[in-house]
Amino acid sequence: MLDTIDQRFGLSRNVTLPQGLSLDGGGRLATVDIAYETYGMLDADKGNAILVCHALTGDQHLASEHPRTGKPGWWQRMVGPGRPIDTDRWFVVCANVLGSCMGTSGPASIDPATGAPYAMRFPVITIRDMVRAQAMLLDHLGIGRLAAVVGGSMGGMQALSWSATYPERVEAAVVLASTARHSAQNIAFHEVGRQAVMADPRWNNGDYYGAEPPAAGLAVARMAAHITYLSEAGLTEKFGRKLQAREAKTFGFDADFQVESYLRHQGLSFVDRFDANSYLYITRAMDYFDLAEEHGGLLANAFAASRARFCLVSFDTDWLYPTADSRSIVRALHAAGAPASFVELSSPYGHDAFLLDSPELDRVMAGFLGSGR
Amino acid sequence: MLDTIDQRFGLSRNVTLPQGLSLDGGGRLATVDIAYETYGMLDADKGNAILVCHALTGDQHLASEHPRTGKPGWWQRMVGPGRPIDTDRWFVVCANVLGSCMGTSGPASIDPATGAPYAMRFPVITIRDMVRAQAMLLDHLGIGRLAAVVGGSMGGMQALSWSATYPERVEAAVVLASTARHSAQNIAFHEVGRQAVMADPRWNNGDYYGAEPPAAGLAVARMAAHITYLSEAGLTEKFGRKLQAREAKTFGFDADFQVESYLRHQGLSFVDRFDANSYLYITRAMDYFDLAEEHGGLLANAFAASRARFCLVSFDTDWLYPTADSRSIVRALHAAGAPASFVELSSPYGHDAFLLDSPELDRVMAGFLGSGR
Repeated sequence: MLDTIDQRFGLSRNVTLPQGLSLDGGGRLATVDIAYETYGMLDADKGNAILVCHALTGDQHLASEHPRTGKPGWWQRMVGPGRPIDTDRWFVVCANVLGSCMGTSGPASIDPATGAPYAMRFPVITIRDMVRAQAMLLDHLGIGRLAAVVGGSMGGMQALSWSATYPERVEAAVVLASTARHSAQNIAFHEVGRQAVMADPRWNNGDYYGAEPPAAGLAVARMAAHITYLSEAGLTEKFGRKLQAREAKTFGFDADFQVESYLRHQGLSFVDRFDANSYLYITRAMDYFDLAEEHGGLLANAFAASRARFCLVSFDTDWLYPTADSRSIVRALHAAGAPASFVELSSPYGHDAFLLDSPELDRVMAGFLGSGR
Repeated sequence: MLDTIDQRFGLSRNVTLPQGLSLDGGGRLATVDIAYETYGMLDADKGNAILVCHALTGDQHLASEHPRTGKPGWWQRMVGPGRPIDTDRWFVVCANVLGSCMGTSGPASIDPATGAPYAMRFPVITIRDMVRAQAMLLDHLGIGRLAAVVGGSMGGMQALSWSATYPERVEAAVVLASTARHSAQNIAFHEVGRQAVMADPRWNNGDYYGAEPPAAGLAVARMAAHITYLSEAGLTEKFGRKLQAREAKTFGFDADFQVESYLRHQGLSFVDRFDANSYLYITRAMDYFDLAEEHGGLLANAFAASRARFCLVSFDTDWLYPTADSRSIVRALHAAGAPASFVELSSPYGHDAFLLDSPELDRVMAGFLGSGR
């Protein structure tokens, strides 16, 4: 299928995989649509493919303009010619995850059995289901083995799941600001977000397509989640108690403090680009993620068959998936005999640091990928 | 007015203070209702009065059964005969704060000017306004000086504000798990809660009295806030990833994990006992709290006229008002020449620890109060 791959930079494609997909929850999707982008050229031996996995609200627009927001790709600073993930050397694939809303099958997609959107009739999915769908895409592209699978946050969960689910297909894995299991606090924050969506009458049990979406509830969900992406120190440094462009407190309920205005903006801009039901499904998949549980309760077992090299990175101010989570993955990798390097980077930006400008992260990424071949 | 004080234990009273109250925001309440409880007996010299200040969603039912929930008072383990705040010795007063909904004037109260509930026409208040209303109550009770003012969380803010606003009336202050200013992250979490309430169509710009209240939005607000009251480690210890009484994941959106069920319960039970508009007003008062700002930007100035002894306590897993917040208060007190003791207690329970069984806290409280007279 190599000849179907256009070699221009940042090519957007959609594919319908007709063989369907059986899911961890017992359900089955009769067909799976996947929207993806590719960057760079696949070598004749197909040995230079890197799969980049996106986070909860990310998408396939890794290093090219987002069609709805007009903003640059979410990891443009990391992926491109001469960048740490160098598209002059690597053939980079990024696919919208199963359950999302940017072209891959999800709750907003049309159920071929009914001709109407799935909405909450979409089956509940897992991180491993997302990975299985990605593997089907790679089959379609004729790519057997990945030179690397790379991801931060939920993307890191996918990278870990790839190594466990398809050990023979992964030569290296880069796992940034991630975890091998969602903690009680992680689940709690996601549950707040889901309840915020479901409390919005416009949610209407998920059947809002063609009507007004539950934007108010989804905006609240995003605001709550956004706080967890930032560090307390980072918020203090960026906003502190600074007021909006006013001389004094208004003694009202408008956004008096800059941090309020910022959060409201985060909520409002999110609803323009994301589907509320997708938010429910993907947060659920993350909450269900517990890689050890899938392997007899011992995380090391997940990596027993792996022949990959691993690179783990955490950030010292990340309280969503703190350094301890990465360390426990590294211990399990070492227990499984897998080569694993780990670094905790210092950043004021909390969990979001993996998306932001970080020369240290660039060096770690380029060095790890460069040492492989 | 001493003869108006009944000497039975846990006496509930309501008083209307006809002189009115001018507020920090420039507004004025023509009259102020205050609901309060007293415990113990006031000495002839009126020198044994302790004011206990409650937290955001607390009330005057300090050590007696809550009339709506039937539960014990919120600090029953701390206040009573032979308890650390010993009502055989102290005359303890606890008043529902201004803006709340348990009998003290707040947005659900009837505006005497219109005969209808204030709703969002209630003026925005500050922590200092709450303290001024308490001072009016003490005037009414004939109590000039407080042997101590005691509070945790928002109650601690009031204790600090008391010392700064009425330095001649405070002999000692106990400030637990509190802060002298709300941080950007504190404000951010409160703003999520307010937006959750306001996103509920039943909120109706605050005019929901006599109709269905915005329970769904308020429940989401409470859920988000509740996470901040607990530590990550405490949540992991209590819930981890334990499922509800089921054998396996349901692959649905019911509360699969115990932590989800717990949080939903916290949200639902809260709306039965609290008014959504009060939640808006009180969180706003907390966000506005910055004791240094009220005193020329230097926290030590707030205590320049104080002659009180201070006792500060923080908890090592409290990430809402972390130990650093208490330390900065202690530094300011020392800079002002005020006697201040400080201890960080170890607890797995996060911010909520000050409300829970803690023999160490009991010893600190009894020892500090006992050393005074």
